[in-house]
Amino acid sequence: MFHKNEYIERRKQLAGEFNNGILLFLGNEESPMNFFDNTYHFRQDSTFLYYFGIQEPGLNAIIDIDEDKVILFGDEMSMDAIVWMGRQKTLRAKADDAGIAIVSPSSALESYLAKNKRKVHFLPPYRAEAKIKLADLLDLKQSELSEAVSVPFIKAVVAQRSIKSAVELVELDKASDISADMHLMAMQIARPGMSENEIAAAVHQVALKSGGQLSYPIILTVKGQILHNHHHGNILKEGDMVLNDSGAETPMGYAGDLTRTYPAGKKFLSAQKEAYNIVLNAYQEGVKALKPGVRYLDIHNRSCLSLAEGLKSLGLMKGNLEDAVAQGAHTLFFQCGTGHMMGLDVHDMENLGEQYVGYTDELKKNTTQFGLKSLRLGKALEAGYVLTVEPGLYFIPELIDQWKESNHLSEYINYDKVEAYRNFGGIRVEDDYVITNEGSRKLGKDLAISVEDVEAIRSNAY
Amino acid sequence: MFHKNEYIERRKQLAGEFNNGILLFLGNEESPMNFFDNTYHFRQDSTFLYYFGIQEPGLNAIIDIDEDKVILFGDEMSMDAIVWMGRQKTLRAKADDAGIAIVSPSSALESYLAKNKRKVHFLPPYRAEAKIKLADLLDLKQSELSEAVSVPFIKAVVAQRSIKSAVELVELDKASDISADMHLMAMQIARPGMSENEIAAAVHQVALKSGGQLSYPIILTVKGQILHNHHHGNILKEGDMVLNDSGAETPMGYAGDLTRTYPAGKKFLSAQKEAYNIVLNAYQEGVKALKPGVRYLDIHNRSCLSLAEGLKSLGLMKGNLEDAVAQGAHTLFFQCGTGHMMGLDVHDMENLGEQYVGYTDELKKNTTQFGLKSLRLGKALEAGYVLTVEPGLYFIPELIDQWKESNHLSEYINYDKVEAYRNFGGIRVEDDYVITNEGSRKLGKDLAISVEDVEAIRSNAY
Repeated sequence: MFHKNEYIERRKQLAGEFNNGILLFLGNEESPMNFFDNTYHFRQDSTFLYYFGIQEPGLNAIIDIDEDKVILFGDEMSMDAIVWMGRQKTLRAKADDAGIAIVSPSSALESYLAKNKRKVHFLPPYRAEAKIKLADLLDLKQSELSEAVSVPFIKAVVAQRSIKSAVELVELDKASDISADMHLMAMQIARPGMSENEIAAAVHQVALKSGGQLSYPIILTVKGQILHNHHHGNILKEGDMVLNDSGAETPMGYAGDLTRTYPAGKKFLSAQKEAYNIVLNAYQEGVKALKPGVRYLDIHNRSCLSLAEGLKSLGLMKGNLEDAVAQGAHTLFFQCGTGHMMGLDVHDMENLGEQYVGYTDELKKNTTQFGLKSLRLGKALEAGYVLTVEPGLYFIPELIDQWKESNHLSEYINYDKVEAYRNFGGIRVEDDYVITNEGSRKLGKDLAISVEDVEAIRSNAY
Repeated sequence: MFHKNEYIERRKQLAGEFNNGILLFLGNEESPMNFFDNTYHFRQDSTFLYYFGIQEPGLNAIIDIDEDKVILFGDEMSMDAIVWMGRQKTLRAKADDAGIAIVSPSSALESYLAKNKRKVHFLPPYRAEAKIKLADLLDLKQSELSEAVSVPFIKAVVAQRSIKSAVELVELDKASDISADMHLMAMQIARPGMSENEIAAAVHQVALKSGGQLSYPIILTVKGQILHNHHHGNILKEGDMVLNDSGAETPMGYAGDLTRTYPAGKKFLSAQKEAYNIVLNAYQEGVKALKPGVRYLDIHNRSCLSLAEGLKSLGLMKGNLEDAVAQGAHTLFFQCGTGHMMGLDVHDMENLGEQYVGYTDELKKNTTQFGLKSLRLGKALEAGYVLTVEPGLYFIPELIDQWKESNHLSEYINYDKVEAYRNFGGIRVEDDYVITNEGSRKLGKDLAISVEDVEAIRSNAY
């Protein structure tokens, strides 16, 4: 946990945004795998973590604006629980660590909320347990919850969590450091004949060894064109490229999120090197543009244009590239967004709504256009934002066939040339950045990204 | 997956137990960590897996007894899903692999169940998503679900899943083999100065590398007296014992569950060796007694008596030991059960209810007596049962203080002598067995368990 003053200040700042009512924070519960008591590792809700810092199930909390009180609702351990789980710090002591004066039993929450029928602000639930709990607590139907969430509460939390404090940046640097260790290890051990599984297991081990977890399921694949491929069943072959998209979550809950793509053998094939450098250029174009006041939508478009220029040099695209990008012709090769906010969540605050996190009342998210509908961040950057830059090229046979069949945007695409790339696979590079007053700073230690540096590691690998 | 005939036969056998109605099987959904799309690894419901074999979210199935039909409800992938997740086998092809003739869209399930208002049998839900889904599908309140579960359905599934088939035993042997590899690795790398985290991460890696998962969260601790200790924050010291309770889940979903306890250094201290051999004796007494017709409750009691005899030899217990065990005096040192059923779940079918899995209408589970209330298996064994044998000794300071204060069962306990052991820690050994016609067979490869064999590995460790 951070020092208690950090949590006290955060709560004070949040409370200052409201004139009355109760702010309700649901902690997460354990999540069962195949029976109630066999659970996945516990993950606290990130907003709860941000304001209260305590990582254990069975907790809820409120900030009572009218009465100027903060109350943690939860129960001390029974002797049975001590036998099974061991004596831990009391809840009272944990509350002290977070600067919380009042602890009440879990059972007292419902009547507290019902008292005087005051406005209860709550955030959108993303777990089924939370939906059941909220509906019970507030005497609503589960189907009524999404209508009843508090937009002012969402906006206030997003505004606050978006700007990372100095102590948060220390954690985010740590997350990127561990993530870089995970990647370097994978880059060093991969070789033809090895299974994706074996490399993914080694990557996972580095995250666990640090005392933390993964910040999201590992993508480690020779089929890098599949954007969220969590299958690790293939064997590396000479001539393949390995795409590793993985990141650590620190014990405090902060995320790293890096991607590297490299040859399964010692060197890229020449066509791979060409495509890799197109992606790397687009990445560098994106990074150069990072600074306060610039809209990430424009950075995305700049990266896409850079990709399109590279694709034109390969003969895959043609025509006026600005028009091509505006119409989304590049999305045959780059179907997703160039980056997203990051913090306590790898897609930071995604549970609060992408419209609120990545866009503004004036700049609405485009939820229909292929490509843009997967861009999680569009609005103007501010100092303290933490985000990823992660352009890529993905050759997806099913998509190529679909587009080709209808001659979709054929004024910008040389479908005959594309055919030669249908089994090329996918390439992505990704690093994490914090926006500073002057521009940006890369988080964490450096990790090989140029063709030369990557090949140097691969040449010494085996 | 097994051959389709395995699933066809399982469903036929189950259907044969019913004269009418619909048997409803809910597959599991993805389980979110910190936002909806950031999920834990997918774990299919074990009963769904047993009868339908398909490991993906978004599926439900029915066996319609009246119309003699099996229907899988689920949807084929959209192009968007193919872009993000990659082209996979079609659902139709997966259904074929499981011998299922009819696939219907997910949306058709609700009206199918409502048609003709027939009896719908369902099993107890253990995930919140399933509670919401069931209540919606059956037009019940969530609070009405536990009353409405089908006891005949539970009993039929338990009867069938309890007897492991030949192909299941191949999987269970494999799970125990991988589990033994996990343990041997941990026994080889542990040394004073190392963190529990580092060893646990290496153990986890072995499970992942096999293409599977853990069958339950790893217990790896120098505080072995804490029964379900999932904290890995301690550093090993010379003189500590390491307790490792961990097991693999095979890619098909079958569990292993092994425990070993060994010195953090090269050799047990002499008091540790004495206590270890007491536990090992109790384990051997239990194993010797395994055969069809014997009640596991009696095996448990025999192991407890063996522990009590050992504790008497140390001077910690006294008096008539059969009376002592009957009154639960040994539970100051052994607070839990000697074993449990195992299969697709590490505590097999625990979601269906321990009373049904481990007991009978005649032999009810003792749900109040300390010790016995944690014994998950009591009933007479049958050939084909798979179970664990896992006695232990646990010195829990808080529990010792509580008992001592009230002089609880002091005719059997020398509290003065116990004092010397209050910081001793805990010891457990555990292997997995299948009941055969003749007696039992240990699953998987051998793993060092005698003091000599354990110390031989530790001596070569570093």
